[in-house]
Amino acid sequence: MDVQRLSVNFKTLEEFENFKEYGSQELSMKEDLQSDIIEDNSESPFYGIYFGNKLVARMSLYKIDRKYDQYFSPPQDYLELWKLEVLGPYQGKGFGRALVDYAKSLNLPVKTNARQRSDHFWEKMGFSPLTYDKDRDRGENPYVWFPKGVSEQK
Amino acid sequence: MDVQRLSVNFKTLEEFENFKEYGSQELSMKEDLQSDIIEDNSESPFYGIYFGNKLVARMSLYKIDRKYDQYFSPPQDYLELWKLEVLGPYQGKGFGRALVDYAKSLNLPVKTNARQRSDHFWEKMGFSPLTYDKDRDRGENPYVWFPKGVSEQK
Repeated sequence: MDVQRLSVNFKTLEEFENFKEYGSQELSMKEDLQSDIIEDNSESPFYGIYFGNKLVARMSLYKIDRKYDQYFSPPQDYLELWKLEVLGPYQGKGFGRALVDYAKSLNLPVKTNARQRSDHFWEKMGFSPLTYDKDRDRGENPYVWFPKGVSEQK
Repeated sequence: MDVQRLSVNFKTLEEFENFKEYGSQELSMKEDLQSDIIEDNSESPFYGIYFGNKLVARMSLYKIDRKYDQYFSPPQDYLELWKLEVLGPYQGKGFGRALVDYAKSLNLPVKTNARQRSDHFWEKMGFSPLTYDKDRDRGENPYVWFPKGVSEQK
């Protein structure tokens, strides 16, 4: 399974319409393309997997600067993983794991907000729940992956 | 439909197990009760609606201090609405609207992250999408409700 960094172009944005977590971000990218604010084939925060010609899984990854790190010890740059989603008919075939493995291969700590009873999935991926902090997490369900030598910020 | 502020007790937490967005926050509340860190019947950020004896809808509301306001003009205290959820068999009967109306009745701006193609619901509730700001929103899908005299922060 080949994880690709997705370019922002009309074809990619059309593929994004198949995903449930489609919203302001994707609409904004489309407007930016239409009004030439960004170029066709600009790099996006999205990574995905094609099955044949069809985009069947995607996630976004944002690198967060260490000065905003509230999760890891020692404080450091980390990746925020959002919008991990595999299209219904392609679930349970390892596409999600391939994307998560790609994120881990970048060798930075990874943080996500585990949603909709996905705890078991994240645990299988080697992620751990953090101690809930009501001021920091405000309803989020943070799960993290620690590279060697990294631990939870207390 | 009577919207109630939910008290944190074992009965409420057991009701929460029926909702999809159950996670660290609820588990943490349970641990705090079990270890007497919080008292039975403490106030929670959750509001809900009972149908008979069953909790069928809930949301959480956090008041955010004006110094963190990145959404509204003039900058002011606002409410962040999370975890709005109506149990499957009770959807489409106005429970969601009753909760949102309650939030609006507090007469502060309200911000939520509209998910899973819920844009149409939020528009029906009188909310508006904001201009997507990739540094502020990082993949979120922010929808807001403006009380009179309040507008979008530019």
